[in-house]
Amino acid sequence: MKNFRHQHSRPKKSALIVGRTAVIEAMRSGKQLDRIYLQATVHGELVDEIKRLAEQTGTPINKVPVEKLNNLNVSNHEGCVALIAKVQYQDLQDVISFVVDKGETPLLLILDGVTDIRNIGGIARSAHCFGVHAIIIPDKGVGALNEDAILTSAGALEKIAVCRVNSLMKAVDDLHLNGIRVFATEMKAERSIAEADFSGPCAIVMGGEEKGIYPALMKICDEKIKIPMSGDFDSLNVSVATGIILYEVMRQRPR
Amino acid sequence: MKNFRHQHSRPKKSALIVGRTAVIEAMRSGKQLDRIYLQATVHGELVDEIKRLAEQTGTPINKVPVEKLNNLNVSNHEGCVALIAKVQYQDLQDVISFVVDKGETPLLLILDGVTDIRNIGGIARSAHCFGVHAIIIPDKGVGALNEDAILTSAGALEKIAVCRVNSLMKAVDDLHLNGIRVFATEMKAERSIAEADFSGPCAIVMGGEEKGIYPALMKICDEKIKIPMSGDFDSLNVSVATGIILYEVMRQRPR
Repeated sequence: MKNFRHQHSRPKKSALIVGRTAVIEAMRSGKQLDRIYLQATVHGELVDEIKRLAEQTGTPINKVPVEKLNNLNVSNHEGCVALIAKVQYQDLQDVISFVVDKGETPLLLILDGVTDIRNIGGIARSAHCFGVHAIIIPDKGVGALNEDAILTSAGALEKIAVCRVNSLMKAVDDLHLNGIRVFATEMKAERSIAEADFSGPCAIVMGGEEKGIYPALMKICDEKIKIPMSGDFDSLNVSVATGIILYEVMRQRPR
Repeated sequence: MKNFRHQHSRPKKSALIVGRTAVIEAMRSGKQLDRIYLQATVHGELVDEIKRLAEQTGTPINKVPVEKLNNLNVSNHEGCVALIAKVQYQDLQDVISFVVDKGETPLLLILDGVTDIRNIGGIARSAHCFGVHAIIIPDKGVGALNEDAILTSAGALEKIAVCRVNSLMKAVDDLHLNGIRVFATEMKAERSIAEADFSGPCAIVMGGEEKGIYPALMKICDEKIKIPMSGDFDSLNVSVATGIILYEVMRQRPR
């Protein structure tokens, strides 16, 4: 049982790029990396170059203690190991242009603070079922979209576009420039999703279960919406809540 | 980590009743048991009495090898250990009568083959949010509604009525006798949930993710319904699908 669990939580060696030079070359050749694990205490020219390229390609760097790298069971890691992306990340503007060119009405999902991999997998599955064009996630604070996530999503994470952005605030600005209305879900909102109008181009922001949507992000959204409930105080699981809202969007849109 | 997992998967000693006489006394005094673990090789008068009382009180018996009982780390189990119910099971007819007396329109949920404890917990959470009066589960084939299940449900399993029945077929018959319309969810159904009429007393049957609803049960349901999807072939997680249907019921019912 222990070994089985390890196989799942430790990435396969084939999914890793090991060593400073190899990681630099991978980024220069355009290979998509899920993230770079960098030993917190390493410095030097190659390390600076790794940071520069990571910034340029939007690859998150996790600073880790050397034990984490040793634990990956690879030799000569030189304080630097990268995880090859299992999901093909796409550029947000490219996705929007593609959808509009096809004559479809954009429907996007923004995840703010949804960190549980099982929830992200479940959300991707619903998103795929209801024709969401892309899921937008921040490049920090989200676990690696690894094999567990893809498994939970029943493969949907490999089929749907995922846009990883440096700033969700900036992403919402970009959506606004493209004429896309941004809805924020909030338990205390006055308007129910059944009363909102999802017929035009829109994006839905879902907050994490504990903290909800980040206040500054909430502020620049166009409209707050809630799921009507009969219960007194309870709240839905974020994956279930997302499924319900996507169903309501789908119900409203003529096909 | 291993110990932590054990604490979760192995029931606490305070949740157990150990030994044949103690289990018999518990049932005679009306204590609700989640299930009885009975060593497959034991026989005798007390064992017969346990089986008789279990039948009478609707308590499932799991026949297990002696190792399972030894593993519970209790002494003198005599081949018989019972798990005290964390959830207070209720009688289906009592629940229906109570709801009707209050002047409310019954809304019930039937789970056929939903075995994953996390899914049951998530479903209970949505059910509580959307005012479901009771969840009906079969007494066989469902994992114990233990602390993990209650945790996943965010406590909802302790607040909502759960009816454990010997036969779901019989339960549907009982619902029919009470004038309750029974809807079965099926991916290939012709009618979408948005077109169905949930305004009257109704029960929704959700099938497990792998096998769906048992054919004989499907046959005695009044109407088949599906969740409309834009995707080609994919299917939703059962907990998400349940949340969506309950939302649609709620949307249709005037408050």
